[in-house]
Amino acid sequence: MIEQTLPAAEPLSCCPSLTMKPLGQDDAVEFARLLKAVADPTRLRLVSLVAANVSNEACVCDLTEPVGLGQPTVSHHLKILVDAGVLDREKRGVWSYYSIKASTLEKLAAFLSPA
Amino acid sequence: MIEQTLPAAEPLSCCPSLTMKPLGQDDAVEFARLLKAVADPTRLRLVSLVAANVSNEACVCDLTEPVGLGQPTVSHHLKILVDAGVLDREKRGVWSYYSIKASTLEKLAAFLSPA
Repeated sequence: MIEQTLPAAEPLSCCPSLTMKPLGQDDAVEFARLLKAVADPTRLRLVSLVAANVSNEACVCDLTEPVGLGQPTVSHHLKILVDAGVLDREKRGVWSYYSIKASTLEKLAAFLSPA
Repeated sequence: MIEQTLPAAEPLSCCPSLTMKPLGQDDAVEFARLLKAVADPTRLRLVSLVAANVSNEACVCDLTEPVGLGQPTVSHHLKILVDAGVLDREKRGVWSYYSIKASTLEKLAAFLSPA
């Protein structure tokens, strides 16, 4: 076996796991930011409402009534979710339509799954 | 088929999913609290250090140096993780030993997995 003399490579940002090995500071900051984006009851409800909509997408106009909040507040929460990559936004006409970005939820679930 | 005339049962607290159906307020509050507990870079690193320890447990004395923080600060973060059910704590002699509560991470990963 050839001895590895090169310094260990930086952890790949591909698929870090919380419980596989000590987490580097960069991954810790990245996942903390993502977790913070969803660590709010209203934002969790908005994500679930978008996912549950028959067309798999929703506009602000579909979401204000179920969460009982005004449009500016709902738009603020949606922006946080889009910035974190949890939701995708597509502008069509006067409305923006939001859909689930499944790859981000998959990445987060894989990260948290116990090794 | 017998028509269901009873009111729909409350969602079981067993295994709610973020993207299966609209999330109830109680589940949203519960999962937001759990997510907040781990949505911090230092707490993520502490969880990963506990998991990576050879004995699958660690005391505060094992954790202060790797995260570069004093014992009171590390103890404060560990308390938040224990209160959220992410870590278990067992007192033996003068030290408390922390281990991963895998069921909580499993529940959180299952909750976030896209349907």
